[in-house]
Amino acid sequence: MKKKIITISREFGSGGRTIGRLVAEKLGIPFYDKELVDHIALESGFAPNFIEEHGEHAPGNSIFAYAFAHQSVPGVMNGLSTADFLWNVQCSVILQLAEKGPCVIVGRNADYILKDRPDCLHAFIHANKEFRADRIVRLYGESEKAPQARLQEKDKRRRVNYHHYTGRTWGAAQNYDICLDSSTLGIESCADIILSILEASK
Amino acid sequence: MKKKIITISREFGSGGRTIGRLVAEKLGIPFYDKELVDHIALESGFAPNFIEEHGEHAPGNSIFAYAFAHQSVPGVMNGLSTADFLWNVQCSVILQLAEKGPCVIVGRNADYILKDRPDCLHAFIHANKEFRADRIVRLYGESEKAPQARLQEKDKRRRVNYHHYTGRTWGAAQNYDICLDSSTLGIESCADIILSILEASK
Repeated sequence: MKKKIITISREFGSGGRTIGRLVAEKLGIPFYDKELVDHIALESGFAPNFIEEHGEHAPGNSIFAYAFAHQSVPGVMNGLSTADFLWNVQCSVILQLAEKGPCVIVGRNADYILKDRPDCLHAFIHANKEFRADRIVRLYGESEKAPQARLQEKDKRRRVNYHHYTGRTWGAAQNYDICLDSSTLGIESCADIILSILEASK
Repeated sequence: MKKKIITISREFGSGGRTIGRLVAEKLGIPFYDKELVDHIALESGFAPNFIEEHGEHAPGNSIFAYAFAHQSVPGVMNGLSTADFLWNVQCSVILQLAEKGPCVIVGRNADYILKDRPDCLHAFIHANKEFRADRIVRLYGESEKAPQARLQEKDKRRRVNYHHYTGRTWGAAQNYDICLDSSTLGIESCADIILSILEASK
């Protein structure tokens, strides 16, 4: 079946977002990354920066967030934790966006949420630690934590969140149609490989 | 760096061997699958069918094999179990074959054994269970065990063997340059994708 929707899951710093953007630009289709956060914000009533910080992270990792959410959106969350409530909104938004037509969606466990749509191509982008450490310092600047520790922390949070909501192992090849190492293949080549698969799909 | 050596790791029944053969034929380079077994047999003194049965399987899973080996190759194995002895021979054979020039190597943990060679492309081929069950019945015939049980058993043995000798998780995307789902992409398309990457590598 013709693949129209591309989900990109990625290790932090691997360039998955850039690959997704390149693919979307080349195809002239919507690219949902930050835009996805805005959609979830609109649907949930939470602020975009709160969603950005909590949406892909471990569930129940902030008691404050839980209490805050219950105060802020009384009666709406039906006793769900903030994380579970956001997960429900996230699923609903991603399913709706996919219904609207061809697009590229980065992160947010979209591979799992859209697993039953045969018109999706699910990609996972990873890279070795040196490549990623170098990239995050160049792109996001230095911080108090060493780059390796930042990678480890962010990947761990994504892994825990993914496992909690999907029951799957994050980064297991079996979850995706294609997995690519951007550090050995190159970021632009990864975009080209995905484009050639879309082109060949019928 | 120009990729000259392709290792193909694969789930049982996924068509990884066929993909490797197609790539080797297209490039006109040696294809080591059964031939690899013959090389290991020659080097180890074991019969090819014994190696085929034990080489990719869990270590120490046959006391008979251990005793048999010690009787057959006295003084050669230096107290190693059959599995450990075969692993050493396998490493040595694969390293030598890679030295000889461009080739495709299927299975035998070659991705790990050749992990330090930058001229290698490491691929992992997987597929959904229905696709694989259908293929093994068509290719290898029916047996007393249900196809799903045969898949589970063979994959488990490869996974345990891989983890024992490499410390890595079998099928984790991070071990490979590229992972492909042959059931969603198609066997010939997987070969084409690998060929296009080799073509593009410099």
